[in-house]
Amino acid sequence: FRMHPISIPTIEKISPECVPLWLDLLPALSGEDTTKSFFQELVNILLSYVCKSFRRSSKVLDFHHPHQLREGLEGFSLELPDQPENLEQLLVDCRDTLKYGVKTGHPRFFNQLSSGLDVIGLAGEWLTSTANTNMFTYEVSPVFILMEEILLKKMQEIVGWSEEEGDGVFCPGGTMSNLYSVLLARYHFFPEVKTKGMTALPRLILFTSAHSHYSVKKSAAVLGIGSDNVVVVKCNDRGKMIPAELESSIITAKDQGCVPFYVNATAGTTVYGAFDPLNAIADICESHGLWLHVDAAWGGGLLMSNLHRVKLQGIERAWSVTWNPHKMMGAPLQCSAILGLLKDCNQMCAEYLFQTDKHYDTSYDTGDKTIQCGRHVDVFKLWLMWKAKGSEGFESQVNKCLENAEHLFDKLKQRPDFELVFKSKPEHSNVCFWYIPPGLRNMSPGPERNRRLHEVAPKIKAKMMEQGMAMIGYQPLGDKVNFFRCVFSNPATQTEDVDYLLEEIASLGHDICIRD
Amino acid sequence: FRMHPISIPTIEKISPECVPLWLDLLPALSGEDTTKSFFQELVNILLSYVCKSFRRSSKVLDFHHPHQLREGLEGFSLELPDQPENLEQLLVDCRDTLKYGVKTGHPRFFNQLSSGLDVIGLAGEWLTSTANTNMFTYEVSPVFILMEEILLKKMQEIVGWSEEEGDGVFCPGGTMSNLYSVLLARYHFFPEVKTKGMTALPRLILFTSAHSHYSVKKSAAVLGIGSDNVVVVKCNDRGKMIPAELESSIITAKDQGCVPFYVNATAGTTVYGAFDPLNAIADICESHGLWLHVDAAWGGGLLMSNLHRVKLQGIERAWSVTWNPHKMMGAPLQCSAILGLLKDCNQMCAEYLFQTDKHYDTSYDTGDKTIQCGRHVDVFKLWLMWKAKGSEGFESQVNKCLENAEHLFDKLKQRPDFELVFKSKPEHSNVCFWYIPPGLRNMSPGPERNRRLHEVAPKIKAKMMEQGMAMIGYQPLGDKVNFFRCVFSNPATQTEDVDYLLEEIASLGHDICIRD
Repeated sequence: FRMHPISIPTIEKISPECVPLWLDLLPALSGEDTTKSFFQELVNILLSYVCKSFRRSSKVLDFHHPHQLREGLEGFSLELPDQPENLEQLLVDCRDTLKYGVKTGHPRFFNQLSSGLDVIGLAGEWLTSTANTNMFTYEVSPVFILMEEILLKKMQEIVGWSEEEGDGVFCPGGTMSNLYSVLLARYHFFPEVKTKGMTALPRLILFTSAHSHYSVKKSAAVLGIGSDNVVVVKCNDRGKMIPAELESSIITAKDQGCVPFYVNATAGTTVYGAFDPLNAIADICESHGLWLHVDAAWGGGLLMSNLHRVKLQGIERAWSVTWNPHKMMGAPLQCSAILGLLKDCNQMCAEYLFQTDKHYDTSYDTGDKTIQCGRHVDVFKLWLMWKAKGSEGFESQVNKCLENAEHLFDKLKQRPDFELVFKSKPEHSNVCFWYIPPGLRNMSPGPERNRRLHEVAPKIKAKMMEQGMAMIGYQPLGDKVNFFRCVFSNPATQTEDVDYLLEEIASLGHDICIRD
Repeated sequence: FRMHPISIPTIEKISPECVPLWLDLLPALSGEDTTKSFFQELVNILLSYVCKSFRRSSKVLDFHHPHQLREGLEGFSLELPDQPENLEQLLVDCRDTLKYGVKTGHPRFFNQLSSGLDVIGLAGEWLTSTANTNMFTYEVSPVFILMEEILLKKMQEIVGWSEEEGDGVFCPGGTMSNLYSVLLARYHFFPEVKTKGMTALPRLILFTSAHSHYSVKKSAAVLGIGSDNVVVVKCNDRGKMIPAELESSIITAKDQGCVPFYVNATAGTTVYGAFDPLNAIADICESHGLWLHVDAAWGGGLLMSNLHRVKLQGIERAWSVTWNPHKMMGAPLQCSAILGLLKDCNQMCAEYLFQTDKHYDTSYDTGDKTIQCGRHVDVFKLWLMWKAKGSEGFESQVNKCLENAEHLFDKLKQRPDFELVFKSKPEHSNVCFWYIPPGLRNMSPGPERNRRLHEVAPKIKAKMMEQGMAMIGYQPLGDKVNFFRCVFSNPATQTEDVDYLLEEIASLGHDICIRD
């Protein structure tokens, strides 16, 4: 392994006539050298960005409003030309694109469930785009198709399924994975829906918790079931579905002449990071003959940790599982798996695309099991990360994120200027809290305090984004007014960053004006 | 613009103890140098692959059956370890992954509608993955969100829509874009479907041609409309929808008490590359009050050419359009746009994800108009390509692909060992033909000749893949037995490659055995 330190040269200004254009790159006959030089310059820009992303002295973002960016900051024009730009200008465009973006890999970016910049995963993405192929057939993606199969099997094994139960596919995001689960369940109970449509079916009812992701409702809307037919089951204070509420909702739906068929249990809710009690829910699904889906988009990563996987006990009883390695496992966007028997749910047998008289085993052509046709290669980055870290590497990453959450929780408990949204220790890496500005600290609870408190987080976030040194999300939920949600999925984040975040919020929030 | 020629060093074998692991890379404290060196080695591998992809002397693929790859060729193990592999081994894995894959950018890869390796697009993808962010909100993707808006507006302008008609989104593939179109149409006529589901609706009927993409049927199945409710309209010999057939199908459906609501017209069919007569179809849609969708996934690229855009005349009358720049415009996979008014079709107003009290104009948060939640950044590569080439660059690429098709067509007409599937000049870059082996040349047309002819293309393709010097697809269609479909979307392809393909097919096909 040789070290070749890369210098980051600046692009020299040369008169435009000498500057190469895209036509000088491959496939031009003598395009190899120009192509390599162009990529070398690009790689310098990209690696400089990568290094900066990890430096605490650099900003997370340099915020501008849409109209400012549209007007062309410092000559950065977003408009599309009729004539070509030269390669030098393109590199400047690339630099500017990164400059005005958000460093989602920065150790102080706490804004999303997906954060961090895994450099092995990044290497995997660069290779994936260089290979530029499609997951629909083995003939154009032999290696990636097998990697997908191996990854899915491994994930199923980790979920706790036997070999035969396995199948699945990587989809463009957790919402699509959840949509697949509803599709699978509907087809399982009513295979005629594929040809006859919903008109031939009774009124179907789905169940999901009040804290679950909105994709269950969206799926019902898209699939023609209707979002009104999603029954929202009550949660306890901690954001966990209450099994008794689920059971009574099922009975009520049956009494009304509807047909319950699907329950979504969440393993790691978006805001609280709560885990629904999977075994209790699985018992209810079994006794009523319902499909159990577990949305572990966010919580699935905890399966990699011997310390934390107990929180998903019962997941092996699910009929389908969503698990997004692009969240807790740090894979670059997107990487989301739906696990479950796809079989012929989506099959259309378009022989003109998926010939069965080819000379290899065409059961490896995955195109006909998906609801896409062409499909991006989302697996290689995860495969490469798994090779690089081993299962153990993922375990240590996950544990570290949860340690950061516990650190934040402990700090918050000690501070009088913050208030926790729920008092119990976080189960996942989500920590939810309010900052209480001086003027609100002695107000008694009630609508007036709530009204004011609701304005605090947006105001602090706005100032934080303008300043650009950290980023965190907020939201209201149920009867709770706007509160911050801090999440940890970035292995670059250290406890010092957690401490920094609290100081930052307190200092930005200390002097904000809240209207009387 | 400085030239930095890159040497491609071989990876030296060093004793395993000294070899860095992933833990030595960023975010490790002193990880910058190791990270840069690792990427430099990777980039050497990737650029060497890119250069090879364009060399005619290199193979398109090195075919192996699934079981061979699974067994681990020359130590290339696909299995996922518990313990980390070192960085050197990862680079070997990367090299092997490319080695056993398919060079979709090779000038002699004719297998798919998406081919070619656009190096500017590739640069765009490397940057996209380095930025590693998500299209759902402006706050995490300010630049990309604006680029998407600008690209969509430009594409709408090219389609011929006025400013106000515009909206849209980039989706993971043309099938998803077509699915959006059905969703939009259904919501337009029956907005209650979102909450009440299909049960509240009459029996809806969709229309699409016999040569259209199967995604219309798949969408009907997924969306709960049912694939039986897709009426397949007859085409003429050239694969174009017959307007009179469409109209009579609509009337028949109405007579049966069903509700026609949606017509898909194809601009560039998958196999023949045929363009449906859009104006005639638009007239019918207007008179019956139906939604007109134009699936220009494949043909949309021709809009960039002043010479060829006439073939899509009438597309401006469509209510929604699918257009995949990853096909004819050569953008890396995936890059597919659905154009049309999304408005509140998919909106769920999940305030816990899409807060409206943020300090910027939140109409730029696109998450709630899509059926995904998180969404990959598919726009930057196209934006960068547009900057690099200008609209004019795309025009010349498209024209060149169609010239190649015409060259192939002219050659085929002259050769006695080949037979065209249809005699007229190709409208798009698809050219469909049979190779006729010596034993079949004097057989009279009929079932026996057809049975034998059906076996020819698969046998030739199998041999071609084993040899690895070119790749082309085949399929049956309607009453036509297996024939080759050659498509041109790779600007690297020259007429010499077209000539090579014919010689290759003839030489592989000359001696094949067809069972009596």
